Amino acid sequence: MNDRLLRAARRQPVDVTPVWIMRQAGRYLPEYRAVREKIDFLPLCKTPDLAAEVTVQPVRRLGVDAAIIFSDILIPTEAMGMELELGDRGPHFPSPLRTAADIEKLAVPDPVERTGFVAEAIRKTRAALHDSVPVIGFAGAPFTLAAYMVEGGGSKTFILIKRLLFEQPKVAHALFDRLTRTLIPYLEMQVEAGARIVQIFDSWGGELSPRDFESFSLPYLTRMVQAVQAKGVPVIVFGTAMSTHLPLLRRTGADVIGCDWRIELDQARALAGPDVALQGNLDPLALFLPHAELEQRVADILRRAGPVGHIFNLGHGILPPTSPDAAKHLVETVHRLGCHVTAPPTP
Amino acid sequence: MNDRLLRAARRQPVDVTPVWIMRQAGRYLPEYRAVREKIDFLPLCKTPDLAAEVTVQPVRRLGVDAAIIFSDILIPTEAMGMELELGDRGPHFPSPLRTAADIEKLAVPDPVERTGFVAEAIRKTRAALHDSVPVIGFAGAPFTLAAYMVEGGGSKTFILIKRLLFEQPKVAHALFDRLTRTLIPYLEMQVEAGARIVQIFDSWGGELSPRDFESFSLPYLTRMVQAVQAKGVPVIVFGTAMSTHLPLLRRTGADVIGCDWRIELDQARALAGPDVALQGNLDPLALFLPHAELEQRVADILRRAGPVGHIFNLGHGILPPTSPDAAKHLVETVHRLGCHVTAPPTP
Repeated sequence: MNDRLLRAARRQPVDVTPVWIMRQAGRYLPEYRAVREKIDFLPLCKTPDLAAEVTVQPVRRLGVDAAIIFSDILIPTEAMGMELELGDRGPHFPSPLRTAADIEKLAVPDPVERTGFVAEAIRKTRAALHDSVPVIGFAGAPFTLAAYMVEGGGSKTFILIKRLLFEQPKVAHALFDRLTRTLIPYLEMQVEAGARIVQIFDSWGGELSPRDFESFSLPYLTRMVQAVQAKGVPVIVFGTAMSTHLPLLRRTGADVIGCDWRIELDQARALAGPDVALQGNLDPLALFLPHAELEQRVADILRRAGPVGHIFNLGHGILPPTSPDAAKHLVETVHRLGCHVTAPPTP
Repeated sequence: MNDRLLRAARRQPVDVTPVWIMRQAGRYLPEYRAVREKIDFLPLCKTPDLAAEVTVQPVRRLGVDAAIIFSDILIPTEAMGMELELGDRGPHFPSPLRTAADIEKLAVPDPVERTGFVAEAIRKTRAALHDSVPVIGFAGAPFTLAAYMVEGGGSKTFILIKRLLFEQPKVAHALFDRLTRTLIPYLEMQVEAGARIVQIFDSWGGELSPRDFESFSLPYLTRMVQAVQAKGVPVIVFGTAMSTHLPLLRRTGADVIGCDWRIELDQARALAGPDVALQGNLDPLALFLPHAELEQRVADILRRAGPVGHIFNLGHGILPPTSPDAAKHLVETVHRLGCHVTAPPTP
């Protein structure tokens, strides 16, 4: 197996800096769109053969160093009893959580019984890839899932979830605890199916002030990280607009912290400390730059990150209008410039 | 005149830390909603008597230390020739900028001729307040206005404006230059009408990586800051998710940097340096906290900011469902805890 990603996550030396792309199995790929013409998003997540097929597509086309299982962070919320609609325009909960009674009603589901299709998709992906690269499992963070479940979908102000935090903190903590007790077995199931590394998406954690992040997200992230690590698997924690939370994120004990493009990786390193790997952090829109300028940015990121403990990625998901050739060029550039840019050329 | 705000902006000692609230003239106030029942948002901006009336409302009710003129950052874009629709659900440009030719067609308008109603509203506000508190003028930053004009409204990914930056940087710079040449006389007009301090909103600048912010926003912000300061008036620069841009923002020479709630003000101070005032930075949702907890957060912000060079504010605009009483309680709390919390009480 190409184990660069696993080695980088553990801050071991690598021949070449590993690279994968958030949302690499997605709408920018014509072969993905061809599958989606036959099946909607949520049924696709629940059909292991097809989920494995789209998971493998970017590995074949781009030569990335890992396959991230095709799924959605909100899958476990449906297993908990929420009605969920997923589409290309974002998630929607027709009956969002409104009261403590709504939260009390949420199940802590058996992961295999209710979400076994994710494990099955991981097994089929491994078989299709002959274990040539590691499969990444994933889950959302409790705060982020709760934000969707309470707001009913995305939000600009997060007024409903924050009112829950500020007006009924005990109810909020009960929700986060229930989510954590759902998500830990869900990730354990993915590891048992063969996921070799796990990413936790706290997509909305950056909407919280440091003190609120510390109270309402950090304890639950930490429980999840420790549970997965106890299975012998490294963990990546990722969120956007989280630069000021880096010292807190370090306290989760995660092996890797994923950064968006708002911070330079050398600055992130200064905030996160030396004993954690970093992932990132090219602006997804940089894939629209001319080749030479894209290569310059890749070189700059590699230089700032250093050769050890760095997983190259975008700072957020790749966007549907992106050219697959640009994505392929990015992967080739990372592999070519690899770890050989640690010292700037002498003039 | 109560000149606390102006003194704090210049890092001079103050008796009490000054406070105002972003969007303090807005929908959370019943007296504002009463005016809006009679007139739409954009016509209200263009009717100086009514704009002055809603500008004064929060000064009377809350006792804030400044009045920010009721207007919208997109007003100058209409004067440049863009068709603009404004409402409570956010701005919309039915004919967004798509080509270099679209940008070439934009006027650099005479501010008095096309936007003189803003100056008139400032004069009427001053008269209504008998100059008891300073009036804050404002404008958007060129990058932020361009983002709206190119995207056609708000955006989650900013794909169109960033493609313009990355695919046609010369066209982007021509747009920013034209906006800057529009916005400087627009702010000068506000100063001549009696605005005693100016805030520049780079609402979307935090979407850019540090290097892109440095290339595409900073030079234009700096030109605007210097032009206003040349008229003898201090300048506040504000944006959200900009924590990692603080050292760059300092280079604008702005007197005050406004911070959102994602960073603690002592950390912001460390990044911005000693020779600039800070504004902020309570999460607007904290106005839903119980009184005692709100007061604790106010005390914490005052302590982290220190008594000199701090203007208290929210980290973003106040939200419509907020209780006016909570806003009033916030202002009273800031004035009460004032500058007397620099040392924690001895146990």
